[in-house]
Amino acid sequence: MSLKKAGVAGSVIGMDRSTAALERSLQLGIIDRIGTSLSDAILEADLVLVAAPVAQTGTILASIEPYLQPGTIVTDAGSTKSDVVASAREALGRKIAQFVPGHPIAGREKNGPDAAIDDLFVGKKAVLTPLPENSQQDVERVAQAWRQCGAIIHHLTPQDHDCVFAAVSHLPHLLAYALVDNIVKKPQADLLFQYAASGFRDFTRIAGSSPEMWRDITIANQAMLLGMLDSYLMQLNRMRDMLAAGDGAALHEVYANAQRARQNWIRTIESAEKQDKEGGD
Amino acid sequence: MSLKKAGVAGSVIGMDRSTAALERSLQLGIIDRIGTSLSDAILEADLVLVAAPVAQTGTILASIEPYLQPGTIVTDAGSTKSDVVASAREALGRKIAQFVPGHPIAGREKNGPDAAIDDLFVGKKAVLTPLPENSQQDVERVAQAWRQCGAIIHHLTPQDHDCVFAAVSHLPHLLAYALVDNIVKKPQADLLFQYAASGFRDFTRIAGSSPEMWRDITIANQAMLLGMLDSYLMQLNRMRDMLAAGDGAALHEVYANAQRARQNWIRTIESAEKQDKEGGD
Repeated sequence: MSLKKAGVAGSVIGMDRSTAALERSLQLGIIDRIGTSLSDAILEADLVLVAAPVAQTGTILASIEPYLQPGTIVTDAGSTKSDVVASAREALGRKIAQFVPGHPIAGREKNGPDAAIDDLFVGKKAVLTPLPENSQQDVERVAQAWRQCGAIIHHLTPQDHDCVFAAVSHLPHLLAYALVDNIVKKPQADLLFQYAASGFRDFTRIAGSSPEMWRDITIANQAMLLGMLDSYLMQLNRMRDMLAAGDGAALHEVYANAQRARQNWIRTIESAEKQDKEGGD
Repeated sequence: MSLKKAGVAGSVIGMDRSTAALERSLQLGIIDRIGTSLSDAILEADLVLVAAPVAQTGTILASIEPYLQPGTIVTDAGSTKSDVVASAREALGRKIAQFVPGHPIAGREKNGPDAAIDDLFVGKKAVLTPLPENSQQDVERVAQAWRQCGAIIHHLTPQDHDCVFAAVSHLPHLLAYALVDNIVKKPQADLLFQYAASGFRDFTRIAGSSPEMWRDITIANQAMLLGMLDSYLMQLNRMRDMLAAGDGAALHEVYANAQRARQNWIRTIESAEKQDKEGGD
């Protein structure tokens, strides 16, 4: 949708497990036509974007592989990269050089064609985790496509990527799902939800995300996420002890440190956004 | 500010520990004048609103008590109620009937006069936890003031209030502070914050809140919050075991249950908002 808006997409062919999603995408102008078969969709493609729950990446790439011509580039939008790269190597074999792994850092808690907006990636990061086998030219073509959607390109190794997003994305998702599930299972759940307000709404927004997508991410990034979760559990147990001891000073120190860190982070974001605007055309 | 906007505040006198905050409030038109002394501010007041970190409520009420005339009503905006009621009983003695405890369910992560907006309470709940000693007429006068700010009045017992908000407000605040503090203390904190995006921003918005205010709330609601935190820690430990075992199906069940509960909750809110609009003038 963003590439079409930028006027750089010749023809977008859609394939999906859901016929309804394909027909709705066609109706909304997100795709130009529905692929009739994998050979139809892949044989003459310049760029293939795999956007699916990450556990399906290997199967999808294996089914694409027989039709993949030299010169066609495949990329993905998966939220984990080490597992995606491993399954891509297995699925694509000698064609692995044609796969440039990527992850646009922009998302919504809604999914499906009706949740699509054409400016989702404007000013957002798109992380590429290129493989040693990738040609510079192919990496640049994928980067260029994301830039045309308005994104800013970053490079990370798959391992650094998975460490970073375990901390700032995967763990918060797990924590938000945990809180909502915990509350809804309490006997007084109806009363509790009745008084939940904007703080709760923002805190749990990401718990509205696709359970299938997040199950796959959680399992794909198991080791990194487990490390981050254990570190968080230690932190929470320390704070539990402070609370049980009525140690307001110790809690204040944690709260103040967090507030300061978050305010610094917000200032950094806002000054970067300001520079983007001033520097842009 | 909201009462002035509604045109129902004769004259608003401000008193604060910070002279700068008072002068800025005067400048912004939030107050009509700065009180010169407690006797000046309290003696002829119709309604006194105590808005301070909850641990200070007792001290403030005790300092007000000597000047409190029959017919003056005192209310508060504290996020906890059992402790506030206990300290009010101690501070006000025989004048306790004049204190109507309240808690407007609307907040921002910013504080100070410059964070004030005059429509903060529109469509939001204001919870009153009246005392057996309160006259119906006094409770109604406080309710009416909040209604004039656009709020919708709810009644709860102090204990139910503290149970509800431990779950849907106090615990999320503690969890958000915990996450930001946990991340900023990691050696790779700078890299992590660099890639934190909108999900993290919303999840941690409440960690931008006043540490002093939240230290007091945490300690004031210690027992209820400890119960909610322990229940959450049990939930998180169960999910840790699912993750360690690679049990995607079990995690999916938690995620799907949370997503469904949150979507139902959002639908309820949105249909209530729609009814408010259709029913309103």
